[in-house]
Amino acid sequence: MTICNSRNLSMMTDLYEMTMSNGYYLEGGKSDRVTFDVFFRRIPDNGGFAIFAGLEQVVEVLTGMRFEDEDIEYLSSLNMFDDGFLDYLAHYRFTGDVDAFPEGTVMYPNEPVLTVTAPMIDAQLAETAVLAQINHQSLIATKARRIVRAAQGRGVSDFGARRAHNMDAAVYGARAAYIGGVNGSATVLAGQMFGIPISGTMAHSWVMYHGSEFDAFRKYAEIYPDDTVLLIDTYDVLRSGTPNAIRCAKEVLEPMGRRLKGVRLDSGDLAYLSKAVRRMLDDAGLIDCRIIASNSLDEYSITSIIDQGGRIDAFGVGERLITAKSDPVLGAVYKIASIERDGVQIPTIKVSEAVEKITNPGRKDVHRVYDGNGHAVCDLIAKEGEDVDLSAPYRVIDPIKPWKDIVLEGCTSKRLLQPVIRNGKPLSTSPKLSEIREYVESQLRDEIWQEEQRFENPHIHHMDMTPAYYEFKMDLLKRAGGSQ
Amino acid sequence: MTICNSRNLSMMTDLYEMTMSNGYYLEGGKSDRVTFDVFFRRIPDNGGFAIFAGLEQVVEVLTGMRFEDEDIEYLSSLNMFDDGFLDYLAHYRFTGDVDAFPEGTVMYPNEPVLTVTAPMIDAQLAETAVLAQINHQSLIATKARRIVRAAQGRGVSDFGARRAHNMDAAVYGARAAYIGGVNGSATVLAGQMFGIPISGTMAHSWVMYHGSEFDAFRKYAEIYPDDTVLLIDTYDVLRSGTPNAIRCAKEVLEPMGRRLKGVRLDSGDLAYLSKAVRRMLDDAGLIDCRIIASNSLDEYSITSIIDQGGRIDAFGVGERLITAKSDPVLGAVYKIASIERDGVQIPTIKVSEAVEKITNPGRKDVHRVYDGNGHAVCDLIAKEGEDVDLSAPYRVIDPIKPWKDIVLEGCTSKRLLQPVIRNGKPLSTSPKLSEIREYVESQLRDEIWQEEQRFENPHIHHMDMTPAYYEFKMDLLKRAGGSQ
Repeated sequence: MTICNSRNLSMMTDLYEMTMSNGYYLEGGKSDRVTFDVFFRRIPDNGGFAIFAGLEQVVEVLTGMRFEDEDIEYLSSLNMFDDGFLDYLAHYRFTGDVDAFPEGTVMYPNEPVLTVTAPMIDAQLAETAVLAQINHQSLIATKARRIVRAAQGRGVSDFGARRAHNMDAAVYGARAAYIGGVNGSATVLAGQMFGIPISGTMAHSWVMYHGSEFDAFRKYAEIYPDDTVLLIDTYDVLRSGTPNAIRCAKEVLEPMGRRLKGVRLDSGDLAYLSKAVRRMLDDAGLIDCRIIASNSLDEYSITSIIDQGGRIDAFGVGERLITAKSDPVLGAVYKIASIERDGVQIPTIKVSEAVEKITNPGRKDVHRVYDGNGHAVCDLIAKEGEDVDLSAPYRVIDPIKPWKDIVLEGCTSKRLLQPVIRNGKPLSTSPKLSEIREYVESQLRDEIWQEEQRFENPHIHHMDMTPAYYEFKMDLLKRAGGSQ
Repeated sequence: MTICNSRNLSMMTDLYEMTMSNGYYLEGGKSDRVTFDVFFRRIPDNGGFAIFAGLEQVVEVLTGMRFEDEDIEYLSSLNMFDDGFLDYLAHYRFTGDVDAFPEGTVMYPNEPVLTVTAPMIDAQLAETAVLAQINHQSLIATKARRIVRAAQGRGVSDFGARRAHNMDAAVYGARAAYIGGVNGSATVLAGQMFGIPISGTMAHSWVMYHGSEFDAFRKYAEIYPDDTVLLIDTYDVLRSGTPNAIRCAKEVLEPMGRRLKGVRLDSGDLAYLSKAVRRMLDDAGLIDCRIIASNSLDEYSITSIIDQGGRIDAFGVGERLITAKSDPVLGAVYKIASIERDGVQIPTIKVSEAVEKITNPGRKDVHRVYDGNGHAVCDLIAKEGEDVDLSAPYRVIDPIKPWKDIVLEGCTSKRLLQPVIRNGKPLSTSPKLSEIREYVESQLRDEIWQEEQRFENPHIHHMDMTPAYYEFKMDLLKRAGGSQ
């Protein structure tokens, strides 16, 4: 194994987590328990929702945290840390609790989607790894969903490994894209690690290597007669690629009793070419031959191709999916919400210069509220353990428009934050990836308004508060504003 | 170690590399030697140049390629591959040659920056890993350089781990950013793996945990008196953070004979606040206290802050550096250029529908040409081994404007492609990262025109051809155009 193949991800952390932890250690070794919230503030691409992904890896990284001899040696070489703290790290295990939305849950800005409750050192050492996983995988799952929506039922595959931001981004990006609804990936390691269906056929080099395009097609068809997809744009799609593909279907595959499964376009005007290729294939009786397209596709270009009547059956989507090119950052943050001192929870609030950066203080529950038809009408932030009884009409507060009179009637609700880790131990294994994917699918089919899923000016999901939580926040805000 | 910590990167490849390799194996086991070129077509952010990075990892991944038992088992489970091929993979070692620009070389579109010459199977199995490394690291190194340029000599640090596209992107992104000229990173693992200087101080949680802002500052200063940088925007920069920092300098640090090293701003109007904070610090005699700023910075916001007279001494740059947010894809490709059959090189050319996608055929050299002052005046593509003698006036062809009469006089040149791997063995160890960084610095100081480095409408570097190479390409293009 090369150095690239193994690394200690416990060290994939910002140095300030270490300098602060050293500080907490020196202040008394075992520090108070705290609760941190993970939440994000803005949906990429001005979308109406995002998809929570990366939880399985968060659990793996936190429950696997270890500092090996060489790590302690390196940290010691920085001459920043107390020897007692380094010894503490050498025996360190994560001892905290994690609660989170089930992986694949549709999520909205400013609600805690994951909380870490732990001694302060544990909570700080968890921060960078938690954010990197959630930010990356949620970003790609959300982008993938947009592309899948644009494809309107046509197949979408991840072709992005070569343009991913390095190797993890290819592999965990493929995982996230699958959660978001793509049908599969071209990345072998993603198939191996996560059981994602993988696919792949030929590059231009296969065609160029074989001298003539027909020879290249013939040899491929002979080796893969059940799964022949031919790349038809190496020389000239309409004058060379398509005629050679048809000839291959007739002269090579049909005598074997096989059909040509597909052709792939990787350049040129995909709307125009796909229509012309479709006609040629149909005229040759190859009505079951699929047309697959790739080349810098995303939800916008796919929408345009379909609007133009392009005859594409499946899309291979690369760089614009795997980098979320149009908006490549999901800025989830990790903010302290509460400190437990002598058994009492002391809520904390960050009063920023920017109003949108003010945090929601204290330990809290998040309820998703459904109307009688099962549609998610709002999310509701409540105080931890607060009884939210929707069997009778129930008044809630929109914190942006607190003067509005909002009463929920005939609704039901579900608590979204679920226990995931207790005392450093995972409570259960993660659901299968296919189950997470199906969970995304079912929410978007049955629960989330279509108005929230459209690309242009989507409906903004209501993020309300219980009256008790709203009052609690306002009180704290007033006191914080005057107290420093 | 958790599953996240170890992986076999030989499997981080597109499936079509495997399906094609299986095909080449079945066509005769050992296939012809070929040469593939890596090149890119468009500089991100409409810049004038890019920086070649990631070569050390390419060498590691290629020379370390191995398929373990569990990999063969997985591939076998796909029911796509010949048993003989799987056995071949089980014993596979990369046997090819790699030539490349030295890591850190300034690079331009449409010139080969790395070539792989190998049996066809080896060349295909290398593709995805080579592209993922070069695309990602070159992208981030290039973006980092833009940000460093904007900072005009002020410090720049990478703070991006939590917004990186997963863990490799944080670590290899930090490496690339360092090559591009940032002073260091906050990412501990990047410091450990690559010896990059790392830094980090405190988060808002440190301040919020300690009850009062002054207490938080005091405790930090007592632990890190030689390196005290205080985060001053948790509550109110001018009414609380700065006065408390000044008090900490006077009451805690100065009695110990220490100075306050810096304060950090992470929100609000950084231009306005930094000027106000500077005045308050100066009035208190803290003229040596540095002001550090972070919060979604990039080359554009840094330029604007400096234009407004902002008094910031160092920038912590996160998401917009580590994701190259404004243009997050460097689309380097891997195209077959030549096939050796019976000892004869047969050049190959891809004639795309799109003119800019036509490749440069054949095995070739790239020369960088310098004028008498050592400035790089053009790059020159020549046939492999072609004598380029600039001691006398030398005519070259601009392939975009072949009618122009361009004669190089008084110039010197340097071959850029250097042998890196021969027969699967690395020829030498990679230079130290600090040497690569210094090499970037020296090129941009001494060789590359300032006109190519500006952000707005940079000068387009001349990419010329020797007359012999130009004629060779034109001949091949004419023949390819009519032959399919």
